[in-house]
Amino acid sequence: MMIFPISFIFFLTLSSSYASVQDFCVADYTAPQGPAGYSCKIPANITVDDFVYTGLGVAANTSNINNVGITPAFSAQFPGLNGLGLSLLRADFAVGGVSPIHVHRGASELILVVEGTIIAGFIDSNNKVYLKSLKKGDTMILPQGLLHFQKNGGDTPALLFAAFNSENPGVQLLEIALFQSDFPTELIAQTTLLDTAQIKKLKGLLGGTN
Amino acid sequence: MMIFPISFIFFLTLSSSYASVQDFCVADYTAPQGPAGYSCKIPANITVDDFVYTGLGVAANTSNINNVGITPAFSAQFPGLNGLGLSLLRADFAVGGVSPIHVHRGASELILVVEGTIIAGFIDSNNKVYLKSLKKGDTMILPQGLLHFQKNGGDTPALLFAAFNSENPGVQLLEIALFQSDFPTELIAQTTLLDTAQIKKLKGLLGGTN
Amino acid sequence: MMIFPISFIFFLTLSSSYASVQDFCVADYTAPQGPAGYSCKIPANITVDDFVYTGLGVAANTSNINNVGITPAFSAQFPGLNGLGLSLLRADFAVGGVSPIHVHRGASELILVVEGTIIAGFIDSNNKVYLKSLKKGDTMILPQGLLHFQKNGGDTPALLFAAFNSENPGVQLLEIALFQSDFPTELIAQTTLLDTAQIKKLKGLLGGTN
Amino acid sequence: MMIFPISFIFFLTLSSSYASVQDFCVADYTAPQGPAGYSCKIPANITVDDFVYTGLGVAANTSNINNVGITPAFSAQFPGLNGLGLSLLRADFAVGGVSPIHVHRGASELILVVEGTIIAGFIDSNNKVYLKSLKKGDTMILPQGLLHFQKNGGDTPALLFAAFNSENPGVQLLEIALFQSDFPTELIAQTTLLDTAQIKKLKGLLGGTN
Amino acid sequence: MMIFPISFIFFLTLSSSYASVQDFCVADYTAPQGPAGYSCKIPANITVDDFVYTGLGVAANTSNINNVGITPAFSAQFPGLNGLGLSLLRADFAVGGVSPIHVHRGASELILVVEGTIIAGFIDSNNKVYLKSLKKGDTMILPQGLLHFQKNGGDTPALLFAAFNSENPGVQLLEIALFQSDFPTELIAQTTLLDTAQIKKLKGLLGGTN
Amino acid sequence: MMIFPISFIFFLTLSSSYASVQDFCVADYTAPQGPAGYSCKIPANITVDDFVYTGLGVAANTSNINNVGITPAFSAQFPGLNGLGLSLLRADFAVGGVSPIHVHRGASELILVVEGTIIAGFIDSNNKVYLKSLKKGDTMILPQGLLHFQKNGGDTPALLFAAFNSENPGVQLLEIALFQSDFPTELIAQTTLLDTAQIKKLKGLLGGTN
Repeated sequence: MMIFPISFIFFLTLSSSYASVQDFCVADYTAPQGPAGYSCKIPANITVDDFVYTGLGVAANTSNINNVGITPAFSAQFPGLNGLGLSLLRADFAVGGVSPIHVHRGASELILVVEGTIIAGFIDSNNKVYLKSLKKGDTMILPQGLLHFQKNGGDTPALLFAAFNSENPGVQLLEIALFQSDFPTELIAQTTLLDTAQIKKLKGLLGGTN
Repeated sequence: MMIFPISFIFFLTLSSSYASVQDFCVADYTAPQGPAGYSCKIPANITVDDFVYTGLGVAANTSNINNVGITPAFSAQFPGLNGLGLSLLRADFAVGGVSPIHVHRGASELILVVEGTIIAGFIDSNNKVYLKSLKKGDTMILPQGLLHFQKNGGDTPALLFAAFNSENPGVQLLEIALFQSDFPTELIAQTTLLDTAQIKKLKGLLGGTN
Repeated sequence: MMIFPISFIFFLTLSSSYASVQDFCVADYTAPQGPAGYSCKIPANITVDDFVYTGLGVAANTSNINNVGITPAFSAQFPGLNGLGLSLLRADFAVGGVSPIHVHRGASELILVVEGTIIAGFIDSNNKVYLKSLKKGDTMILPQGLLHFQKNGGDTPALLFAAFNSENPGVQLLEIALFQSDFPTELIAQTTLLDTAQIKKLKGLLGGTN
Repeated sequence: MMIFPISFIFFLTLSSSYASVQDFCVADYTAPQGPAGYSCKIPANITVDDFVYTGLGVAANTSNINNVGITPAFSAQFPGLNGLGLSLLRADFAVGGVSPIHVHRGASELILVVEGTIIAGFIDSNNKVYLKSLKKGDTMILPQGLLHFQKNGGDTPALLFAAFNSENPGVQLLEIALFQSDFPTELIAQTTLLDTAQIKKLKGLLGGTN
Repeated sequence: MMIFPISFIFFLTLSSSYASVQDFCVADYTAPQGPAGYSCKIPANITVDDFVYTGLGVAANTSNINNVGITPAFSAQFPGLNGLGLSLLRADFAVGGVSPIHVHRGASELILVVEGTIIAGFIDSNNKVYLKSLKKGDTMILPQGLLHFQKNGGDTPALLFAAFNSENPGVQLLEIALFQSDFPTELIAQTTLLDTAQIKKLKGLLGGTN
Repeated sequence: MMIFPISFIFFLTLSSSYASVQDFCVADYTAPQGPAGYSCKIPANITVDDFVYTGLGVAANTSNINNVGITPAFSAQFPGLNGLGLSLLRADFAVGGVSPIHVHRGASELILVVEGTIIAGFIDSNNKVYLKSLKKGDTMILPQGLLHFQKNGGDTPALLFAAFNSENPGVQLLEIALFQSDFPTELIAQTTLLDTAQIKKLKGLLGGTN
């Protein structure tokens, strides 16, 4: 009896280093992106560290207007996520901290409270508001494409992690999009019904122009 | 030579009326929905009218606070769209009309100006604002998951149609979600940085409570 | 209180210009394509004009055998559509104009009549024919993968726009595929049951060979 | 040390029989379909025979106008395929047998020749024709959404199997769609450029009306 | 000026309660499943508690052969996840605890260490092994479809949470599939090369038959 | 009347050779891969032979420890499959031949027996085992993500073909992943419950280290 195992020959004998089969597509940040994500690193250059991210172990600075610190582990930070449709972020809330109303690009969000108390909420497209106070170990799903927020609901710091079913979910915060950009004040007023004075006040606070 | 054509037998000889093959899944609004959409009508009940929608031929009333009238042809109105990942809406703009800042659930939007002049814009997640004045026949793509708006940019009525790559794109307007709901004023203030007086003013105007 | 807003740091501090996060993937026609579409333009080179297409504002020439003029706004013409799964085309019909029987590659089509009267139809895989006369403002869904056509059903010019849930839906017209190609006449006869004389006549008319 | 293994409790203790987790969704032909396919059989009723189909072991009758016999194993015949995105068919070709020009709904096709010689071909949307004579053991991919055909290229019977990346790929044959339906002859003439006499001849042969 | 806001009329005035538009599809465990998941609850019956799961706040019993306790929050336990493509589980590791080699059905897994030290690893299809010792706050991606494991790598209890880009990722553990089932010993021996004595020993330990 | 047919102008008049529309994306093994597969060959270099693979016509050598020979036609071997989500393999079984327990990366498998008798089986995540003896012409679906095997069930050679709904399904065999890799013996023991002696015996047989 032969003792050689069966062999699946998946590598072409080509001169090119691009022909190999891959079980994953670790991001190569030096080659062009396509609609599905970053180009893939050549397998010979991949190590286990491409699949590990250590940045979520550190609390973020919360000394800002929202008293919150956000640390994403998306495909732009964590190359092993590329093409796999999954990512995480860490949100540190000081007392009074708020993750302002925002929306992600085509991804749902599943939050897990790890320390403290979090009040989370979302609004559906029929204007029904869903609000819940969550304690350590609780998890809440924020369905894709709907405006939502989280805030510290207690009097001690709070910590949550959020998972997304996209490796590049983006995040668009209302206050930042409107008041930290050069979106003309007159257009904001017309398209939000906010008063000009209110818009100018928040642009002043957040650094927006026009 | 035989003159019978080949036959693909796609129907099972079952007693059930549900076994047939379908090229499409016309919505049956009387059976449960699933994550992929409405249940399918039994083929025997399907007619060409399930695939035709005539509601977009009529201008909508624009006598409202935004001077705009929106007529959707989504799967809830147009049963033939169910499961096919495509829909349309019509937006009529009086002079000064505005389709306020909003976002759709996981769908991009492709607008086509049919009458008048439209100013459209969107904001990306790096806070870059893209604005353009569009005339009859121009089309603009509004990438999925990003805040955007349209307004009448001329001094005559304007009309646009918008296509979506979803049969159920939803629509969430900031002013409606925030100020026509029962989202508590204090929470809005904390999660948007808006002043309480501003919020109360708009709730009064739009009918929100709390 | 600190006045700096929270900041999501999405850009890596790499020497490469490819590492940035993108909310969209505007087509770069100078780099290789992949299965999901064109490579993405570097963000610094993107402007609002990448998201706008003005070619659909002009009536196409209808002086041809079908008396129809088709103007696509697909990803090969309109770089902002790349990766977003949505496109449009404009079809101008002279009196008697016909958009011949055709099929698209994996996309449904949603037509909107803007001028005149259109007769549209499709055939399902059980050989049931769905026909409808559509007037201005009517919309009809043509489910993916099924043979369909449109024709001018009135005695004035007609105009429609068609949306597709693909940025690259392709179009394969029977008369062009069969009679404007080098598909051998004998093979056409065998695989369509058409008479050789008929095939040769249409090849002569449309420019096919073999 | 305990000797009980870890247990993943995936079943809810509900009175309903629908709550269980499923690794697959065997078709229940007695409940409504949705856009994603048939409803799922209750697990208690599933046996290994739901995953096995024996109908492809029998040669189909080829005594018809195309001298070909087609036996599908799609989700309407083979309940275990439901929701899994894969199917097969068997095509038996008598000498001179032809599988006429056709298209599938959003699925590619991968053919494998098991007996005899097959000439296969497809036309792309630039009207380029791809033709190949295939012998036993050869395989050819027919990309999704493009018109294609197969025919017996030898002087003995031939047999092929075709795999599809859809459990319900449908099949639309030009000759059947046009000439075995009630599609009005005048409309066929206008939308294909075929002569009326040719259309009437083939409707007579294949059983079409109008 | 009119003070009524624009209104998107998304509800049909039908007698049926199934016609409404939904932004989500909370699982109704009393109706049939389809390939895309559970049927949707009627909106009137949905509350915020459908979107919250509190079961992950409790440490699982680890008194078992692997010294590990697994608590899933998948769509069968957490109805709000239905159709949203995202789920979580909690894994408690006693000292020496091991989550044995396993695979999920078409989902990647992103683990986050919350307490203690975890050694995690996966094997790719070229037999390359990726191993890493992870401390609190570290995250590792386990690409879809590849065998992987986690174990407590320290001398105190450890805790991790794992996110999946599926609401129903399943889990198939080698030791359970092979040795807790009625898979015949002779077939296991032939298809794994394991010795019969080894198989019988583990079946005895885990409760397998045949 | 003009006799020129309508023309869809899909090619941009750019200097780049990458701008053309493609109905398919034949693999270019010399350019970077992305998450969706290989880069596309330039159309001018594509021929019909890119869509044909002849390697499945030859029986594989079965002189190995499993008495089985596997010949894949995946996208790494067959460039026309790239991006099309479909592939095939051929498995030759000597008498006593076994395709050991394995799993594919996110793809279901549909096997077709062409010669001899095959015993196939899979295990679901509730530990239910599905076993069937298949004869020539029988087909069996092996749902995605579940452990499965095939073996020769007769006393003559057997042959099967397997279709996958992925062009790059991968294959991970337990015996190869565990015993032909450098996965440390102690970790295998802890994560499988196998005895060290058993592991060392199989590593010796299959060439594993550590």
